[in-house]
Amino acid sequence: MTVSGDACVIGVDFGTLSGRAVVVRVSDGAELGSAVEEYDHAVIERELPTTGKSLPPQWALQDPDDWVAVLQRAVPAALEAAGTSPDQVIGISTDFTASTPLPVLADGTPLCRELPDRPHAYPKLWKHHAAQPQADRINALAEERGEPWLARYGGRISSEWEFAKALQILEEDPEVYERMDRWVEGADWIVWQLCGVETRNACTAGYKAIFQDGHYPSEDYLRALDERFADFISAKIAGPLSELGTRAGDLTAQAAEWTGLPEGIAVAVGNVDAHVTAPAARAIEPGQMLMIMGTSTCHVMNGDELTEVPGMCGVVDGGIVPGMWGYEAGQTGVGDIFGWFVDNAVPPRYHDEARERGLDVHGYLSELAGAQEVGQHGLIALDWNNGNRSVLVDHDLSGLILGLTLSTRAEDIYRALIEATAFGTRKIIESFEAAGQPVRELFVAGGLLKNPVIMQIYADVTRHPLHLIDSDQGPALGAAMHAAVAAGAYPDIHAASAAMGKVRRDVYTPDEARAGAYDALYEHYSRLHDHFGRGGDDVMHALRHIRPREVARG
Amino acid sequence: MTVSGDACVIGVDFGTLSGRAVVVRVSDGAELGSAVEEYDHAVIERELPTTGKSLPPQWALQDPDDWVAVLQRAVPAALEAAGTSPDQVIGISTDFTASTPLPVLADGTPLCRELPDRPHAYPKLWKHHAAQPQADRINALAEERGEPWLARYGGRISSEWEFAKALQILEEDPEVYERMDRWVEGADWIVWQLCGVETRNACTAGYKAIFQDGHYPSEDYLRALDERFADFISAKIAGPLSELGTRAGDLTAQAAEWTGLPEGIAVAVGNVDAHVTAPAARAIEPGQMLMIMGTSTCHVMNGDELTEVPGMCGVVDGGIVPGMWGYEAGQTGVGDIFGWFVDNAVPPRYHDEARERGLDVHGYLSELAGAQEVGQHGLIALDWNNGNRSVLVDHDLSGLILGLTLSTRAEDIYRALIEATAFGTRKIIESFEAAGQPVRELFVAGGLLKNPVIMQIYADVTRHPLHLIDSDQGPALGAAMHAAVAAGAYPDIHAASAAMGKVRRDVYTPDEARAGAYDALYEHYSRLHDHFGRGGDDVMHALRHIRPREVARG
Repeated sequence: MTVSGDACVIGVDFGTLSGRAVVVRVSDGAELGSAVEEYDHAVIERELPTTGKSLPPQWALQDPDDWVAVLQRAVPAALEAAGTSPDQVIGISTDFTASTPLPVLADGTPLCRELPDRPHAYPKLWKHHAAQPQADRINALAEERGEPWLARYGGRISSEWEFAKALQILEEDPEVYERMDRWVEGADWIVWQLCGVETRNACTAGYKAIFQDGHYPSEDYLRALDERFADFISAKIAGPLSELGTRAGDLTAQAAEWTGLPEGIAVAVGNVDAHVTAPAARAIEPGQMLMIMGTSTCHVMNGDELTEVPGMCGVVDGGIVPGMWGYEAGQTGVGDIFGWFVDNAVPPRYHDEARERGLDVHGYLSELAGAQEVGQHGLIALDWNNGNRSVLVDHDLSGLILGLTLSTRAEDIYRALIEATAFGTRKIIESFEAAGQPVRELFVAGGLLKNPVIMQIYADVTRHPLHLIDSDQGPALGAAMHAAVAAGAYPDIHAASAAMGKVRRDVYTPDEARAGAYDALYEHYSRLHDHFGRGGDDVMHALRHIRPREVARG
Repeated sequence: MTVSGDACVIGVDFGTLSGRAVVVRVSDGAELGSAVEEYDHAVIERELPTTGKSLPPQWALQDPDDWVAVLQRAVPAALEAAGTSPDQVIGISTDFTASTPLPVLADGTPLCRELPDRPHAYPKLWKHHAAQPQADRINALAEERGEPWLARYGGRISSEWEFAKALQILEEDPEVYERMDRWVEGADWIVWQLCGVETRNACTAGYKAIFQDGHYPSEDYLRALDERFADFISAKIAGPLSELGTRAGDLTAQAAEWTGLPEGIAVAVGNVDAHVTAPAARAIEPGQMLMIMGTSTCHVMNGDELTEVPGMCGVVDGGIVPGMWGYEAGQTGVGDIFGWFVDNAVPPRYHDEARERGLDVHGYLSELAGAQEVGQHGLIALDWNNGNRSVLVDHDLSGLILGLTLSTRAEDIYRALIEATAFGTRKIIESFEAAGQPVRELFVAGGLLKNPVIMQIYADVTRHPLHLIDSDQGPALGAAMHAAVAAGAYPDIHAASAAMGKVRRDVYTPDEARAGAYDALYEHYSRLHDHFGRGGDDVMHALRHIRPREVARG
């Protein structure tokens, strides 16, 4: 296909609180303009906006009309900001939070439009954690039966994923379960709205719906969970899967009206925010690990072959790009831990001083922490304040700080927490390597790449140079590339990534002296990691059990 | 001796920053009036007040004229406040911080009056920590030679005590060492000023000058430390020791002029602030342990027999009262840890809320922490932020907090730190009991007794009712009792304590349910205690060594 020099594509990134549309030039990936639309209902956590009905703890819903509003408002606004004529646009693609599934009718109508007073009729956002009892049973039964797919997910299916959330509906509101014709990821539903056709993408099917080796979990297994759940796959899920970058269909007249884009242009199949960022950062060759570092860190990496790496979150055929095994690992608390620390453990004088200096508290603490030598603070921390996803896969672990003295100051702990998360990343890298999946290069995307102190510590701790994505909107850029592929402007995502991806290589490089000093500290971290994480002292689990019912706070 | 009903004694307590005089009625211990005199020079830590000569890190000196000013000002002011006629006063006694020794001429003149520009000519306050290299050598040599007295001090002589500080003078300013005729505790020097006679009390000689079984360390041992140190005892220290409560002499004309008291009244021998408090709290029977809880906690207890309790700070014949073995143990960080936490780890909203509520931050945090159930916060801490004095006797240990999550709040950590210090006390109690020195009752003095949350946690953790001293000026009251004994108003300190001591018994009693819950947490504490304190994981020492030279801060 010949593409004119000013041809553009649209990438739309659906996040937790807002959606962002970016207009990208096909030839070189230049980001010409963008716009953000905040969701009217943000995250629905306390009560239904319709009736005011209150929700139990750990619920997190969304309103699909908020997603449509992004198409209606952010896309035209991005076009206007870019000064791009709609005629120049040859395709559109999206990425989404996941797993964020919703129950819909056969024509794609969200059930919450029919049953607005029923909480279970709404999309369950990725961070809806109320299906933990269901997840526990899913895991226990899979382990008992020796289900072969369990090892592909580090031995643990998350309560965030499709099965636990669907089972929760079945058990708590069987009428909603009965009325739903399809159970679909937001990632696929938004594509359905754009092109009028139901599709399912290989990424969410693999990582969130346990699709492995050509099939979903067996009917036998589902029946053992609940007799009524036996036909869950065949009734609500089954259907062809599409490789990432496939053309899902053509933009419908209605979607053209919403977006101001030409009817009939290419719509790519759905995708997930973390995974779609890999081509944007030009990090899709085997052994190129991309870390998306924000409140938590998601590590994605392609491999030529299937290996079951202990403690990873998932490995999916074509999960990142078609034709390769996509590996995913993660750290449940990274920026969240630093944020917790700043909100809960930094005394007034730091806030005052930061304000006077025109910095935020993170910036001020980073400056102080960055001036320290390795080991100067005398502390070691374990980065498990939000549990451990990889490599221990244990959400009941907790954080530890060791080495405190009366002269310990906030910047000392702040630095120790950063180091702890870097040590956690090193553990993940070493686990991949020990399993025969070498990690050759490290790429970084996500908000934390703007913090030079964090970046340098990661380079020193891992002894890897860091390559930084050169875009503030990595997911939307990655989505746009998939639109270009779906429109036929590039033969595959590799070609699109090479032409449109943006990375600054070797922005931070390890310092040999500091790396050596960190080797010594990492040994201590590892010993604590194994002592408290692998059964030497089970105190962290014991404390969870001693603890009276955890109160939802703050 | 018959004593008139309105006879009084004066107790003078010399603290770290001020001295306090209290007028006490002999018959019943009623505190009739008191006055405080702040030291003009407080603690001399940065530079000599005379020449501005700057001091190295970890130095802490005092000016003996500040102590004399307490006699000159606080004693008359206390008399006036009490409305007491000097004629009613039959004796005076003092207590002092220790070990706070000073070099003096043969007539008692402080060498710093002769050599005001020489730092080593000044009294070295208890918290002067610059003689650590000397202490290390003292300990290494004692261990090498198998000196029998070492076990009486938990295997470790402190850098705070007389030998390390004297050896530092010898090595760093031999001329000052040469010119000093006597090396004397402030506790004994102030008595010398009152009665014109040099005396040495059994308490400081035992706890701070290694006097055991009738003698000081041998000349051989001292020579092995330094040839020039061989005659240290015979030249600078030796002399008769006096039992506590002994009459050191009569008030001199000059001291009478300073204080406004009658010349010739009884002056008791010196005493130490912690130990002198035991009779004030009526806690001098064997097995009655008194905890003086402030920035640190000092545990003192009498026993009928000598036992070498592992990890105690000292055991001294007549160290608390004549005729019994006085045991001392300690926790190096208690109130200091809570203070460190409030200064360094409590976010602005707590400070604001406390201010609005008219509370200090400790009060506000205590209120929040006190409302929690045992185990609710899910945390365990080790109380070693300032090292561990008893029972591990290891100053290089450090603090630990385990169980942190993203919902951990300041009050959770505050409570966990309180509990950690209570667990530390329970360890000390259990060590005494395991060594055959049963702890039958717990008494509390010191500033922390005013915090009901701390007190209740200690009662629950130790399963002991707490008896609280019923005086805000325990040391001065205890000193006053010794004055009454020295004046002959009572035959011994037991009789004085029974008549004049003040205690509220069973103010806090353990709750069985909470105590049971703490048993479970204490098991975890103990496992961590042994793992990090007894060699399971030597990470705390390693961190001290990795750490570049500790910078003096704050």
